[in-house]
Amino acid sequence: MAIEQTIKYDAPTVEQEIEVVSTYRLEERAREVVPAGGFDYMSGASGDEFTLKQNNEAWSHKGILPRVLADVENPDTSTSILGHDIKVPFIMAPIAAHGLAHETKEAGTAKGIAEFGGTIMSISAYSGATFEEIEDGLKGNPRWFQIYMSKDDEMNRNILDEAKSDGATAIILTADSTLSGNREKDMLNKFVYPFGMPIVSRYLTGSGKNMSLNNIYAQSKQKITPRDVKFISDYSGLPVFVKGIQTPEDASLAIGAGAAGIWVSNHGGRQLDGAPGSFDTLESISKVVAGRVPIVFDSGIRRGEHIFKALASGADIVAVGRPVLYGLALGGWKGVKSVLDYFETDLKRVMQLAGTQTIEDVKNARLFDMKK
Amino acid sequence: MAIEQTIKYDAPTVEQEIEVVSTYRLEERAREVVPAGGFDYMSGASGDEFTLKQNNEAWSHKGILPRVLADVENPDTSTSILGHDIKVPFIMAPIAAHGLAHETKEAGTAKGIAEFGGTIMSISAYSGATFEEIEDGLKGNPRWFQIYMSKDDEMNRNILDEAKSDGATAIILTADSTLSGNREKDMLNKFVYPFGMPIVSRYLTGSGKNMSLNNIYAQSKQKITPRDVKFISDYSGLPVFVKGIQTPEDASLAIGAGAAGIWVSNHGGRQLDGAPGSFDTLESISKVVAGRVPIVFDSGIRRGEHIFKALASGADIVAVGRPVLYGLALGGWKGVKSVLDYFETDLKRVMQLAGTQTIEDVKNARLFDMKK
Amino acid sequence: MAIEQTIKYDAPTVEQEIEVVSTYRLEERAREVVPAGGFDYMSGASGDEFTLKQNNEAWSHKGILPRVLADVENPDTSTSILGHDIKVPFIMAPIAAHGLAHETKEAGTAKGIAEFGGTIMSISAYSGATFEEIEDGLKGNPRWFQIYMSKDDEMNRNILDEAKSDGATAIILTADSTLSGNREKDMLNKFVYPFGMPIVSRYLTGSGKNMSLNNIYAQSKQKITPRDVKFISDYSGLPVFVKGIQTPEDASLAIGAGAAGIWVSNHGGRQLDGAPGSFDTLESISKVVAGRVPIVFDSGIRRGEHIFKALASGADIVAVGRPVLYGLALGGWKGVKSVLDYFETDLKRVMQLAGTQTIEDVKNARLFDMKK
Amino acid sequence: MAIEQTIKYDAPTVEQEIEVVSTYRLEERAREVVPAGGFDYMSGASGDEFTLKQNNEAWSHKGILPRVLADVENPDTSTSILGHDIKVPFIMAPIAAHGLAHETKEAGTAKGIAEFGGTIMSISAYSGATFEEIEDGLKGNPRWFQIYMSKDDEMNRNILDEAKSDGATAIILTADSTLSGNREKDMLNKFVYPFGMPIVSRYLTGSGKNMSLNNIYAQSKQKITPRDVKFISDYSGLPVFVKGIQTPEDASLAIGAGAAGIWVSNHGGRQLDGAPGSFDTLESISKVVAGRVPIVFDSGIRRGEHIFKALASGADIVAVGRPVLYGLALGGWKGVKSVLDYFETDLKRVMQLAGTQTIEDVKNARLFDMKK
Repeated sequence: MAIEQTIKYDAPTVEQEIEVVSTYRLEERAREVVPAGGFDYMSGASGDEFTLKQNNEAWSHKGILPRVLADVENPDTSTSILGHDIKVPFIMAPIAAHGLAHETKEAGTAKGIAEFGGTIMSISAYSGATFEEIEDGLKGNPRWFQIYMSKDDEMNRNILDEAKSDGATAIILTADSTLSGNREKDMLNKFVYPFGMPIVSRYLTGSGKNMSLNNIYAQSKQKITPRDVKFISDYSGLPVFVKGIQTPEDASLAIGAGAAGIWVSNHGGRQLDGAPGSFDTLESISKVVAGRVPIVFDSGIRRGEHIFKALASGADIVAVGRPVLYGLALGGWKGVKSVLDYFETDLKRVMQLAGTQTIEDVKNARLFDMKK
Repeated sequence: MAIEQTIKYDAPTVEQEIEVVSTYRLEERAREVVPAGGFDYMSGASGDEFTLKQNNEAWSHKGILPRVLADVENPDTSTSILGHDIKVPFIMAPIAAHGLAHETKEAGTAKGIAEFGGTIMSISAYSGATFEEIEDGLKGNPRWFQIYMSKDDEMNRNILDEAKSDGATAIILTADSTLSGNREKDMLNKFVYPFGMPIVSRYLTGSGKNMSLNNIYAQSKQKITPRDVKFISDYSGLPVFVKGIQTPEDASLAIGAGAAGIWVSNHGGRQLDGAPGSFDTLESISKVVAGRVPIVFDSGIRRGEHIFKALASGADIVAVGRPVLYGLALGGWKGVKSVLDYFETDLKRVMQLAGTQTIEDVKNARLFDMKK
Repeated sequence: MAIEQTIKYDAPTVEQEIEVVSTYRLEERAREVVPAGGFDYMSGASGDEFTLKQNNEAWSHKGILPRVLADVENPDTSTSILGHDIKVPFIMAPIAAHGLAHETKEAGTAKGIAEFGGTIMSISAYSGATFEEIEDGLKGNPRWFQIYMSKDDEMNRNILDEAKSDGATAIILTADSTLSGNREKDMLNKFVYPFGMPIVSRYLTGSGKNMSLNNIYAQSKQKITPRDVKFISDYSGLPVFVKGIQTPEDASLAIGAGAAGIWVSNHGGRQLDGAPGSFDTLESISKVVAGRVPIVFDSGIRRGEHIFKALASGADIVAVGRPVLYGLALGGWKGVKSVLDYFETDLKRVMQLAGTQTIEDVKNARLFDMKK
Repeated sequence: MAIEQTIKYDAPTVEQEIEVVSTYRLEERAREVVPAGGFDYMSGASGDEFTLKQNNEAWSHKGILPRVLADVENPDTSTSILGHDIKVPFIMAPIAAHGLAHETKEAGTAKGIAEFGGTIMSISAYSGATFEEIEDGLKGNPRWFQIYMSKDDEMNRNILDEAKSDGATAIILTADSTLSGNREKDMLNKFVYPFGMPIVSRYLTGSGKNMSLNNIYAQSKQKITPRDVKFISDYSGLPVFVKGIQTPEDASLAIGAGAAGIWVSNHGGRQLDGAPGSFDTLESISKVVAGRVPIVFDSGIRRGEHIFKALASGADIVAVGRPVLYGLALGGWKGVKSVLDYFETDLKRVMQLAGTQTIEDVKNARLFDMKK
């Protein structure tokens, strides 16, 4: 691994607004422009992709009940989380390696977010861009930093220092990825990252370039415990989200350990296959959290309807991931903005048609149990 | 929008009786004769068409239990609603833009209904024909008028005046469409109406011609509230149905606001995608309505069995929509009559085989819960 | 209808033993040898064929639990019903028009049954063969007669006289067919019977030849009531099964009217489409019948497992229909015998593997609820 | 049957490590190298293969809930059963006729197991290799012997003597196979074994070669009863598993008869079709067994997730069958080892991601009910 081989990876370069009819269609269009190994990495998941499919299937377990005669016009999508006033109840999820989608890497995504405005970028520890490069695009907009911990706490302090000095206002501790999920497509493709990961390269034996996800995860910390929540919280002085929560038990455990927020996620089906759809786990978790801390939800958000259903089931905000990357692939920062615009427009329409004027109304909406 | 471009739209023109083996087959045949954009508009729905599919799926959630030894012969399909004695428990649903299906527009449909006799035509505010043109076909048969409200109540009074003078005996207030649903097919087709809408053109910036559904809905009133029910009821002196009810809560709200009838519908899946199948919502609504006002049901009626199931679940009558338009496309007014004849024959057969002599018997029939 | 047109219908003529790997495969093989209109008539059902599919799907709602350490060897399939000792718990269902499958018509089926021995033939009122022709094959083996009633009771007495003099030991009153089901395939094929129906031709305006099923059913009696049960019972002095029972209510009604047996059936999905799978209705009926009279079950029996499940859910015997006709089509009477042999062998294997020595053991077996 | 015809059967011969991305892919690869009749025999099941499909479907009825903040690193897969300390909670299932997969027959499998180490081989009575040949590969590793009983107890004593002298530490009494299941593919292929079965040939009229499974099972004992459990236990002095348990009732019966272990299995769907998925029956059985004796589970294990789910539902260990044979077919003993390595690696990953450090933790994990 000492000598880095040059692997040719032609990431898309085009910058253009894109028409978003649906984000499912974006995925198909992105497949045509992103190199196959990169596309499979981005879109794929673990094992049978059972959990990936469940993430989508789960939406059909609850129906939205349109309320009429509801005195609604031009619904207000604004909300706030941990002191940030945001104009929409969705933020960018932390996703690794945006460079697979576009040559501008995370900086392109950041610029799209900045141009959209009024939301938050989550920066992944597995970013292919440096904090500085990202700030070129983000231009002072709010950001949270997602950490994959090193086995060496000195390294972790070092990374937290850097993230904090970059302006992160919260730390997202990913707790569901103490090893790589069983990414069969990556195995079949013998996929390795075509570029390095400047943030975590300090604790890898290598830059990240030409390394497999398996290898990188194995070099990160396996034992993520309540002590780590406390460590990050104490050291950084920042609010900590524990990401990857799928049970009420773990939500309570995280809050007990000092978490300032719960991030319900199954990592887009990319970690433990055989887990239920993330949305299927949300309601029981939110009941236990009971408003003590905010809940962020991800894994499967593709439409305004999904945002609505998640919020009506206890999430405070949601995070969107893959669809934004597809927008990045198809149009660079302009594509990112097109996707965010789409989500805003689609959510507004859903709120109007569902008879909900505010995010608070959405949270109080009753869903229809499609299984009974 | 001031200059109207001439878009070529070759609507079918043939007038002939058609053989109706099933209305699902009619849809496939109509696809061959209606221009693609028009067909997609008519047959399509919102988003993933999840709700459209649920409208059909929902029928399989309840089975009809054939009762035997039941002393039934030549069942009587007649019933009455709001003072109208009708020979069948189904009426024409309000559907926009019949001109997409046939050059005779709503007048063709009206003539088919008149020739069938003994039922009611719902005239859509988005009709492409004028009241006068429709009356040419309808020839004094009963009609209800469906309103999309203007933001300007003076316009609404004006429209109500005209509808009333045309002889409407009830007003259907569509409450689920304060914006357009997310019609992806229309977006992909860049579909605009190829002709104007004389009834609502008075409040549009344009005639309706060359305008998208999105645009038209956006120009109509968003805030439809209980006050509007009262306004229409008071001003017109006519009974008002609130259409688009999907919850017991809204049924009660509408009745409290003075609605003379509840119209259970999800707009054929064309408005809020992610809503449950309309039939799945019917029973709980009818329990709350509890006979205080009549219930009309639509969204998914394609067979006599469906009419039976809806009536056995609390509807007083049903409204049929797309299948009639397919009949119009395939045979003009004669095709419309063929479709109505089919529904009558099919319902009679179902009533005979289910052991029900009257519509009252159908309403009292017990269905089989297929989910348990 | 006075002049009978000669329609060419080349029914199969071959007589040979056939290998029965599964009766589903027989259906596919029969499709190749039976003229299309006849095959569609035999294999098809009403409407969407929802109920036909449910008849098959319903088996998957209950699982057989294999019992081990059960001291079983060479299981005994014999049982008795209404005084007949039979070697297997299945009999021939009454099916119309065997001549569509084979030129030997019902006589071929009868011979196959006679050669198999130890079971009962149900003779349909819509037989294409006369009682005499059938007896040529049946050779004194037991038979029940299934009646479609005339509107004229004198005709009914006449038919009952003939059936009784032919040796019928029970009358099966089909109560679910007071009109024809909505057989879409027949409509598309413009299917009419290519030969007459000597038993009911006495009350038809025509022989049955060149007549549609719709027409024939319409000429039979619609009002089948408890009085008819009593009439047949009193006049014939024979035990009467009421066939087409799908509800506990009707089972009680039939018994109250003097029925000597309940025949649970949805007519193979050929009458009221939208009805649940026949097997799904069996258990609740058998609980109400509670052993007062025997229960025959049909609609969907294709395997030994199905016989087992039906018996374990309350049936005393089952009737098999279409698979026998496919055997007739593929091998004449020898094919019929092959199919009956298959069912016997398959049932024996299932009984052995399920740990049940006798039919009584089967009836007491506990099934597994696959829906929970 | 006296003269043995020479049937050409070219079993694979290659010995190589294989890449196991998933065992489902192995099945597809094995299909390409194993003669069709042999492959269908190995991979196929009874009847409609309903139960085979249920074995796979059943896994989706329960989801694994990933637990985070769990202090887990390098999970420990070791456990013990009946005094054997094993490094993984899976063993080799008893499967007949490994020679269909590879010319080295059971000896190849045995060598792969020995090289993997730390687990147990179950030797089938229908082995194509002799005990001596198997020991060449197994080299003293632990083994259990699975018996199909002769109708002649003298023969059974003889077989038990031989198994015991070979070093078997437990006897597996297969109780679900007192006749062959209804293997339709074998019938269509007219499949007979291309080689003899030295262990049971002593009680067959023939060596096993050129004999069908039907024939062989018919010559074995049908009446397997609690007395046989006692007989084997008393005569051999070895612990006896009763294999093929699918009900709590039979688990209790077996324990009452002296069984030292319960083997939950539906024979991979190869015996009674129409049975539920094996995993669906496990939980109720384990509740009744309540730790009195250990439970082995098989039928459908293809992934680490499946092992996890089975253990969390009451199994103490699982047995893997077909995937190992596919490994044998593709790579001889090296392929067998590759498959066992895969299961170990996959289980470790699942344990890590599910937050379980030990097998005891897995057993105490709560699963998510996907049906509710």
